[in-house]
Amino acid sequence: MDRRAFLSAGGGAAAFLCTIGGETVRVRSPRDVARVDAAAAALPRPAGARTDPIDRAQFPTPEPQPGGRRREYWIGARTVRWNIAPAGRDEWMQRRLPGPRTILAFVYQAFSAGFAHPIGPASMPGPTLTAEVGDVIVVHFSNLERRLRQAVTMHAHGVRYNPEYDGAYLGDFTRAGGFVAPDEEFTYVWEATPESVGVWPYHDHGPNHTLNAIRGLFGAVIVREKGAPAPDVEQVLFLHSFPPEVSGLPRLFHCVNGRSYAGNTPTIRARPGQRVAIHVIGTDQNFHTFHIHGHRWHDASGALVDCPTLGPNETITASFVEDNPGRWLYHCHVYTHQDAGMAGWYLVEQ
Amino acid sequence: MDRRAFLSAGGGAAAFLCTIGGETVRVRSPRDVARVDAAAAALPRPAGARTDPIDRAQFPTPEPQPGGRRREYWIGARTVRWNIAPAGRDEWMQRRLPGPRTILAFVYQAFSAGFAHPIGPASMPGPTLTAEVGDVIVVHFSNLERRLRQAVTMHAHGVRYNPEYDGAYLGDFTRAGGFVAPDEEFTYVWEATPESVGVWPYHDHGPNHTLNAIRGLFGAVIVREKGAPAPDVEQVLFLHSFPPEVSGLPRLFHCVNGRSYAGNTPTIRARPGQRVAIHVIGTDQNFHTFHIHGHRWHDASGALVDCPTLGPNETITASFVEDNPGRWLYHCHVYTHQDAGMAGWYLVEQ
Amino acid sequence: MDRRAFLSAGGGAAAFLCTIGGETVRVRSPRDVARVDAAAAALPRPAGARTDPIDRAQFPTPEPQPGGRRREYWIGARTVRWNIAPAGRDEWMQRRLPGPRTILAFVYQAFSAGFAHPIGPASMPGPTLTAEVGDVIVVHFSNLERRLRQAVTMHAHGVRYNPEYDGAYLGDFTRAGGFVAPDEEFTYVWEATPESVGVWPYHDHGPNHTLNAIRGLFGAVIVREKGAPAPDVEQVLFLHSFPPEVSGLPRLFHCVNGRSYAGNTPTIRARPGQRVAIHVIGTDQNFHTFHIHGHRWHDASGALVDCPTLGPNETITASFVEDNPGRWLYHCHVYTHQDAGMAGWYLVEQ
Repeated sequence: MDRRAFLSAGGGAAAFLCTIGGETVRVRSPRDVARVDAAAAALPRPAGARTDPIDRAQFPTPEPQPGGRRREYWIGARTVRWNIAPAGRDEWMQRRLPGPRTILAFVYQAFSAGFAHPIGPASMPGPTLTAEVGDVIVVHFSNLERRLRQAVTMHAHGVRYNPEYDGAYLGDFTRAGGFVAPDEEFTYVWEATPESVGVWPYHDHGPNHTLNAIRGLFGAVIVREKGAPAPDVEQVLFLHSFPPEVSGLPRLFHCVNGRSYAGNTPTIRARPGQRVAIHVIGTDQNFHTFHIHGHRWHDASGALVDCPTLGPNETITASFVEDNPGRWLYHCHVYTHQDAGMAGWYLVEQ
Repeated sequence: MDRRAFLSAGGGAAAFLCTIGGETVRVRSPRDVARVDAAAAALPRPAGARTDPIDRAQFPTPEPQPGGRRREYWIGARTVRWNIAPAGRDEWMQRRLPGPRTILAFVYQAFSAGFAHPIGPASMPGPTLTAEVGDVIVVHFSNLERRLRQAVTMHAHGVRYNPEYDGAYLGDFTRAGGFVAPDEEFTYVWEATPESVGVWPYHDHGPNHTLNAIRGLFGAVIVREKGAPAPDVEQVLFLHSFPPEVSGLPRLFHCVNGRSYAGNTPTIRARPGQRVAIHVIGTDQNFHTFHIHGHRWHDASGALVDCPTLGPNETITASFVEDNPGRWLYHCHVYTHQDAGMAGWYLVEQ
Repeated sequence: MDRRAFLSAGGGAAAFLCTIGGETVRVRSPRDVARVDAAAAALPRPAGARTDPIDRAQFPTPEPQPGGRRREYWIGARTVRWNIAPAGRDEWMQRRLPGPRTILAFVYQAFSAGFAHPIGPASMPGPTLTAEVGDVIVVHFSNLERRLRQAVTMHAHGVRYNPEYDGAYLGDFTRAGGFVAPDEEFTYVWEATPESVGVWPYHDHGPNHTLNAIRGLFGAVIVREKGAPAPDVEQVLFLHSFPPEVSGLPRLFHCVNGRSYAGNTPTIRARPGQRVAIHVIGTDQNFHTFHIHGHRWHDASGALVDCPTLGPNETITASFVEDNPGRWLYHCHVYTHQDAGMAGWYLVEQ
């Protein structure tokens, strides 16, 4: 599909800039994406700037607090063919979904210790990391990607880390965790402090982070108070989109966890009396409001809400004791988003 | 106005998808709107899917709590010719408003008991429904629309309802209240629970909800604590817009309660010492910030604000004891929105 | 650069309306901007409408409360040549910034008493005004602009003012402070009340406010409790953008305080143990989320956040005791915004 066809198909409406290495590219078609990827693949490892004392400082690797644990994960980043709507149908509007819907996604995948074997199929979001206050989260991260061959990272929100474990490409100021080249490994060590309690995104923050986060390089970290039980039903929902210029598909899909349209997006199930927590994280260019039919909840201020706003890499939590059986729709309440697939089922048994 | 003319007039910038029946339509012109409407009018009543026990479950009709009341409303949905700026002027920028500004709107209209006669002219928003905790709200709803001939509904936020009264089209999973065909009636029964206290939108959630909510099918529900007095001055303001591709007008209008520009939008009046509550609800594709000159108030967290963000179908309330006489402007603080009409007068007597 | 070239360069994507005098102009190129400016320059002083008693009311000039002070400022508005990226480099992505990046900005500039001489170079934002509860802020404002020759104003959020000091052009209803013509002065008197505590924007609200606020006519007011100390490190960051159709540049820049890209935007410095407050104010058409690497903080509701949403003319404050040395990135977390320059350094000594 050439650029003209893309634009007439609605691509380019959300055209965006990628700045990488020496280049700024306005991304309006897969050809522009290829150009950005080539720039990312050609980028040399940063030399490291050490003129400012801050950039020369050394930092100890954090240890768990007394009584805390090491929570160890093995995570690889790799591209996969990804079907946005494997059921082939929109169960809400009761229709077959026409047209292509498989893309090259870039995902974080869980592995067993030592990267012995993958744990389950690749998923979007990546594995949910959990910890309690006082723990450290240790992520052995491997760049397993063979096709795009560019440096990637893991940058976490909410948890505490020193600059070594920031996971951000910073040009000449980059530290080791900010540039994990193909076939390399890096171990991130993050602390779950009292100020880390909550649900947070992690995502690529390497040199090509914009494209790669759009492609699927994101996941969640959950930090609880020491000994706090998990809710009976807990679900993380990432709200995001695959614009045509990146996906190469002829149309825009709005997604929940990499899928579009009810029956493809997560179907959440609960029973009356259960404590339910649905954590919703924005992870595209857009702002969203999140609504669950038949339900409302207190936000952090104590106000009753059923359709709060959330922005990119912001989390809101819908938390309640279930008391209303039925088949309910959850969805982003921006009409174009819900109509392009950002909706799913919440099923409560009677 | 053909598609090319629309685009050059700024239409299409906010092109959106409508998914309905077997179709996904990218709405960029009135012709596309007509296609969506035709698909909606042709949609058969859903057969009802009963393979999952959830979809076979029966639910009792709720009754008021002890001491509670039935609050009964008769509401019809119909299209009307609607002038976006009946005064013909923008009183803020002191100018005549050129060009056409009458559209086909779709509104909820209040009727007397048994639909004997309409109560006042059609309005946008529809009638404000009020209740106290412990009450049930009973809405006799009639689809009176003769031109578009498509199923519509009423879906309420905040209040409690079982699936029968969700008012949402869900394809094969639709229950009775989710598909009220032309000339049909349905009675919604919603509960005002302690968790329903607040101000909430209701809106069409039938098969063509995106177009019909844009056209004006929305209104507000206010639930108060038992015995709580209403504020001295209470005003609901819906922030929304009429995109050219739906309105058929050559330009975009940003609106408050269906009107554009000060002198057409609601003029709110208060006196010093009065308790004022202005409830602002987003109901289009956009995010807004709401500002009142000369005033500030505590938000739900206790913070002092005068320009908070709100998204689609989210409510914020500006609540204060009036103490600052004068002619004040209220407006959305997104410049393009205020410049396209999303502003009005707040007049405080000395 | 003609209109066609602009559009192909990405201009016009954010095309907006300006309504001024008798005109509504869709701004898509510098030519449209010139037309709006000409309309603004030709606009006569409003006659003053006095049919409604509210518009005839007189208001006393406020005085400080007992123990309060007059905080007096001399501020002039004028255009300046403004380099969006004076370092010529993006220190984050380690690259030279190609292409032109100097614009005609419109800024508020601080002067010594009686406008004797400018205090420092012109800045964006304008001078930060500070007061404590009980004080009055007295701003002697002079329209020093010789090129655009149009009325401008200062409209402040958060503080209390009567209609004389609203600083808003209201067509025929305009009071003196709402139309400060070229070469004129006006003295605004604003009260710091207990409900004014916080950090607020001020900005132009004259007849051409949309263009002029985009050009840089904004600044901040900080009101503290009586005797409350300032934080050890306090920084105001305005998030905004220069669209090509206004700037005349071939591309869009997203900015922090008038600058784009790390090394040009403010570099904030702190030490462990210091109380830090970073006040972030949206001041363009867009919504943003604000993230600081390695940090999180309590929002007004007490929730822990590290990437909250903010909209136009809304303020969020990131407030914490510094405890995490290193070179950190702060940025808007909307990818296109950060990639177009909305990012900077936060440096914490070890």
